[in-house]
Amino acid sequence: MPQFLTTTQADFEMAFTALLGMKREDSPEVDADVAAIIAYVRARGDQAVIDLTARFDRLQLSPETLAFSPDEMAAEVAKVGAEDRAALELAAERIRAYHLRQMPMAEESWTGPHGETLGWRWTPVSAAGLYVPGGTASYPSSVLMNAIPAKVAGVERLVIACPTPDGALNPLVLLAAHLAGVDTVYRIGGAQAIAALAYGTDTIEPVDKITGPGNAWVAAAKRRVFGKVGIDMIAGPSEILVIADGQTDPDWVALDLLSQAEHDVSAQAILITPDEGFARAVGAAVERRLETLDRREIASASWAEFGAIIVTRDLAEAAALSNRIAPEHLELCVADPDALSARITHAGAIFLGHWTPEAIGDYVGGPNHVLPTARSARFSSGLSVMDFLKRTTLAKMTPAALAAIGPAAERLAQSESLGAHGLSVRARLDRLNG
Amino acid sequence: MPQFLTTTQADFEMAFTALLGMKREDSPEVDADVAAIIAYVRARGDQAVIDLTARFDRLQLSPETLAFSPDEMAAEVAKVGAEDRAALELAAERIRAYHLRQMPMAEESWTGPHGETLGWRWTPVSAAGLYVPGGTASYPSSVLMNAIPAKVAGVERLVIACPTPDGALNPLVLLAAHLAGVDTVYRIGGAQAIAALAYGTDTIEPVDKITGPGNAWVAAAKRRVFGKVGIDMIAGPSEILVIADGQTDPDWVALDLLSQAEHDVSAQAILITPDEGFARAVGAAVERRLETLDRREIASASWAEFGAIIVTRDLAEAAALSNRIAPEHLELCVADPDALSARITHAGAIFLGHWTPEAIGDYVGGPNHVLPTARSARFSSGLSVMDFLKRTTLAKMTPAALAAIGPAAERLAQSESLGAHGLSVRARLDRLNG
Repeated sequence: MPQFLTTTQADFEMAFTALLGMKREDSPEVDADVAAIIAYVRARGDQAVIDLTARFDRLQLSPETLAFSPDEMAAEVAKVGAEDRAALELAAERIRAYHLRQMPMAEESWTGPHGETLGWRWTPVSAAGLYVPGGTASYPSSVLMNAIPAKVAGVERLVIACPTPDGALNPLVLLAAHLAGVDTVYRIGGAQAIAALAYGTDTIEPVDKITGPGNAWVAAAKRRVFGKVGIDMIAGPSEILVIADGQTDPDWVALDLLSQAEHDVSAQAILITPDEGFARAVGAAVERRLETLDRREIASASWAEFGAIIVTRDLAEAAALSNRIAPEHLELCVADPDALSARITHAGAIFLGHWTPEAIGDYVGGPNHVLPTARSARFSSGLSVMDFLKRTTLAKMTPAALAAIGPAAERLAQSESLGAHGLSVRARLDRLNG
Repeated sequence: MPQFLTTTQADFEMAFTALLGMKREDSPEVDADVAAIIAYVRARGDQAVIDLTARFDRLQLSPETLAFSPDEMAAEVAKVGAEDRAALELAAERIRAYHLRQMPMAEESWTGPHGETLGWRWTPVSAAGLYVPGGTASYPSSVLMNAIPAKVAGVERLVIACPTPDGALNPLVLLAAHLAGVDTVYRIGGAQAIAALAYGTDTIEPVDKITGPGNAWVAAAKRRVFGKVGIDMIAGPSEILVIADGQTDPDWVALDLLSQAEHDVSAQAILITPDEGFARAVGAAVERRLETLDRREIASASWAEFGAIIVTRDLAEAAALSNRIAPEHLELCVADPDALSARITHAGAIFLGHWTPEAIGDYVGGPNHVLPTARSARFSSGLSVMDFLKRTTLAKMTPAALAAIGPAAERLAQSESLGAHGLSVRARLDRLNG
């Protein structure tokens, strides 16, 4: 059974703090293994990748078969039925439209008080690699969510690394790659794929940025190559927080909670409501739905171990608790979701009103479903075009501007004992004065 | 002597690739030590921080003296002379004005094709911690460059950790903290300071984001706490690339190169020019200036080991080489710097024209001087207000919108075998159809 708390109970603060601090994921200690894998790939390149793929994925590759050929891609894509294809196309179109709105002005510049020009320019990352997990966690929707922002940003070369254990893969993943404009899909995974993307091999050109979710090995490898390449974030298990005023069908809210719980035994689903009767009704609805859910074993384990129902005095208190949780997904199943939304300071994504189940956001809403987990919405954002852009700042002084602000720069350089800094300004000032 | 290359020499590509791959920093293997320090701080809190500060900084603190008191701050700030203060105030004002322009619209929303509302909202990080190195690398300008974007973004609580080995510190650092609106300055440094900021102690409240440069221990600690808190980047030694057409005073360019070389023996200064005579004149000017420079030992070592002069066929070739380097600082000392700037795809900051020595950007230009090093301008940007903001995506479906796009979401959920996802949409669709 999940925890059932009320904010009026004497030990609520203690219980809530414990809920906040709950460690949901025991990452295995893979760092030493990952370091060895990265070193092996850097030393032996293709051969290391092929060797490790044979060992971990039971798949014998050659440099020629590391990537799917265009013919292989086409053959796999042809396996996808019309209805799945239409659904994926609708998702791609809506995700593209949303992310196009995120594009900043390519360049901004203005003139400062002394005639100097200041500004900045945005440019895309040249090459990006998307990691796509294999097996049951191989989601075509994640391919769209990672690849489309990259293409919208203007990334020229976009590749995917997706392991195919025993050669198996989901053709929808390849269709999603195709729809999103991915150039190459490599049949490789794990830390070896991350190392190959970061450092390159004879066959695999290195990229500048790596995004996408993965297991503990992938996460540890991304942490290690960070700096050599950019990475998006270290993803943790998924979470949902539903704030409800009690005027929604309890069954809807139960399904929304379960749609996160079914992801992973480490996922977390929390309901906060001021209506205790509704809270109990949702709890009962979850139990009923669990009986018939396909993924009931996973969802039950997640709900029992990490689920929680919290009864508050009012919705304002619910919003305050939500801000302490900083949830990845926040559903506001209330009569006036906009008013409540205005009170939310930390959340990855907000789903407003009774007609916006979180699952809409996973697929076709438009916003990205790669979102900050494990309370990291306190300091980070979901994936966006910004992850595939970088800004170059611009400054152009005139002689008058240098005359006006140069002496202050010279002074500060001296105070920091950086002589050449000061002299580089002084030499120019002397010319102006001479 | 620095390398002298010409793009027409037979082995240029090999030599240039070697230059690109040059490892300038041998980070000591401190990761195990850092892990132990973080674990110690998490277990013992204040006591661990006090103990480690006594050991590494030879300074005996108590929980009451971990932070400077307002009186201590005021006493230190009063030591700063009027001219230094005026220079710092000018810098603060210009940095603030520049970063104010970076603020995105707080919220954007629009109506989709089926009446649904989509959008996002930017909110500030609640609390940030700035690491400021102690000793000779304790730069008041860096305090401004880190703290002002945080305050402009709206960060509520802003603290500094700055070690004061043997109790010594630069009063200008405290003045910069004061001018930027920093709330608290802690006399602590190293991995223990990063651990205390990330996890908190009885005295030190945890923050959500940590920025600022530091030594190998600080860098390793930031890498380890990344995820628990946000971090900015792992900073490496500084770099400058000057592209010159030969129409600048060679002495100016020499000083610009030296203004990076004097930072650190691992810094790198490179000149690219199509004018071989000018190239040699700059080389000679560097040697002359090195004779009298205060920091000549550092600058000579950097210039000899990592410096380079490259003669190209033309400016277009210079721009192409620059894009492969992706320099932190790029000076365009040419007659038409705007035209050349348009060819630059990867650079942290560009300084345009003869009157914009890079040192202006270090202090008073306005743009941030915390910039991507070690070729990371390929995928990352300088510090900005965006580092202290995060975006929450918003989606609100109407019944009509759910009816239009819900079936595609349900279909994709089924294809990913996520039953509850599909049911959460289906339950609502059934109500609409019922």
